[in-house]
Amino acid sequence: MVRLRLDLSYDGTDFRGWATQPTLRTVQGEIESALALILRLPTVPQLTVAGRTDAGVHARGQVAHVDLDDVDPPILERRLRRLLPADIALRGLTLAPEGFDARFAALERQYVYRICDGPTGPDPLTRAYVVSHGRRLDTDLMNAAAQHLLGEHDFASYCKRREGATTIRTLRELATVREGDMLATTVRADAFCHSMVRALMGALVAVGEGRFPPEWAGSVLAGLTRDARVRVMPAHGLVLEEVVYPDADGLAARALEARRRRDE
Amino acid sequence: MVRLRLDLSYDGTDFRGWATQPTLRTVQGEIESALALILRLPTVPQLTVAGRTDAGVHARGQVAHVDLDDVDPPILERRLRRLLPADIALRGLTLAPEGFDARFAALERQYVYRICDGPTGPDPLTRAYVVSHGRRLDTDLMNAAAQHLLGEHDFASYCKRREGATTIRTLRELATVREGDMLATTVRADAFCHSMVRALMGALVAVGEGRFPPEWAGSVLAGLTRDARVRVMPAHGLVLEEVVYPDADGLAARALEARRRRDE
Repeated sequence: MVRLRLDLSYDGTDFRGWATQPTLRTVQGEIESALALILRLPTVPQLTVAGRTDAGVHARGQVAHVDLDDVDPPILERRLRRLLPADIALRGLTLAPEGFDARFAALERQYVYRICDGPTGPDPLTRAYVVSHGRRLDTDLMNAAAQHLLGEHDFASYCKRREGATTIRTLRELATVREGDMLATTVRADAFCHSMVRALMGALVAVGEGRFPPEWAGSVLAGLTRDARVRVMPAHGLVLEEVVYPDADGLAARALEARRRRDE
Repeated sequence: MVRLRLDLSYDGTDFRGWATQPTLRTVQGEIESALALILRLPTVPQLTVAGRTDAGVHARGQVAHVDLDDVDPPILERRLRRLLPADIALRGLTLAPEGFDARFAALERQYVYRICDGPTGPDPLTRAYVVSHGRRLDTDLMNAAAQHLLGEHDFASYCKRREGATTIRTLRELATVREGDMLATTVRADAFCHSMVRALMGALVAVGEGRFPPEWAGSVLAGLTRDARVRVMPAHGLVLEEVVYPDADGLAARALEARRRRDE
């Protein structure tokens, strides 16, 4: 049994998200079926992923692992690449180092959310991953709001809660940069709960429109419950850009620690 | 009667090119129908365009003009924007200055052709406008080949000839820049004949693969006939990025001169 690391990019437009669902087209489902077909496995192998993206969310730097018997990574890589559809790119398939776990060994996930707030809407060539927003946004206000969200907090008010799972996360960056009519918000944390990035973006957008003062983002956080005034922004503006792992030495220790700390 | 200038971006994927064709979806057809609908015109108005893009070719900086009776540009702009499909963005609709002609007043057209020559193929989010190329390309060789093509020449060997039309053009730039696995070739000329950019790219790619020496691109040019070794590269890698016009003073003179010099 060897553990393989898969580095993946995908256009989330035509997927019902990452996670396998019976009868629906998902990224995980496509890759697992392709692996089963190539390796003639009696049952579909299980992928473990760093960031379980929702329907419509894209990825440039997604990472997954899978445990398989008796495979030659370079050959499997070529065969899998040939079989995958055009909206999934296999950037690499390699033997994972000792202690690697795509989910529990990850130190950090980085997402970018893209919005065009110009009157003409986004460049049609980028419309699959840029959200068009009808009102002009003030990035200074958005970055001021972000200051009230950074750090280790219980993000319950920015998450879809799941039974028994903690919603404590460490938000390391939430920075919006404007280039013309294009806003790109970089969001980095140790991990994210379900729909958390899109809810954080909803708060930034509400502040950026001037509907609430920057402190409001912090008072929603302190409330610890979902707030109807925080809109969960559309999925297609979101791209999982990168997952950061420790070097080989840190890997085993990190996997152990993460499994102990988080129960979700 | 007023002349309006339209600045347009479009994703060429789902269009059979710019030019109106009965029963086929084209960019010109969509815009003309929308204008006729908004203005309740008995017949469809005729757009004149700077660069008649082929099926599958995209545009960020396309320019067209149309002559209309009795319109208010800001109102028409808003209404047209609401009616156009998501793969066409109306960047601006303004009163054209005296002497403006989208086609004959243009001094220069600039295209960019994008190729990914890495083993994993392009980022799925950019695959609509980046061509995947299986063999590694040498950009130094491509830029050396370009030196044999720059300047005023009869580009008959790089054009689909049209009866009675000259194929003399002035090629001002043909420069390829690599960033990782992504190659972007900027192509600038006073004007282009049909399929010329994609044929020039075919020559650069053949040289970049090492199949021919850089001088070969020049000997094909001197041959003045289509050469089967020059592949016309796929349409979807090509984007019309910009059209350059003279300032108001130069406009009228330029339109006259261009109409005299070129018969196509």
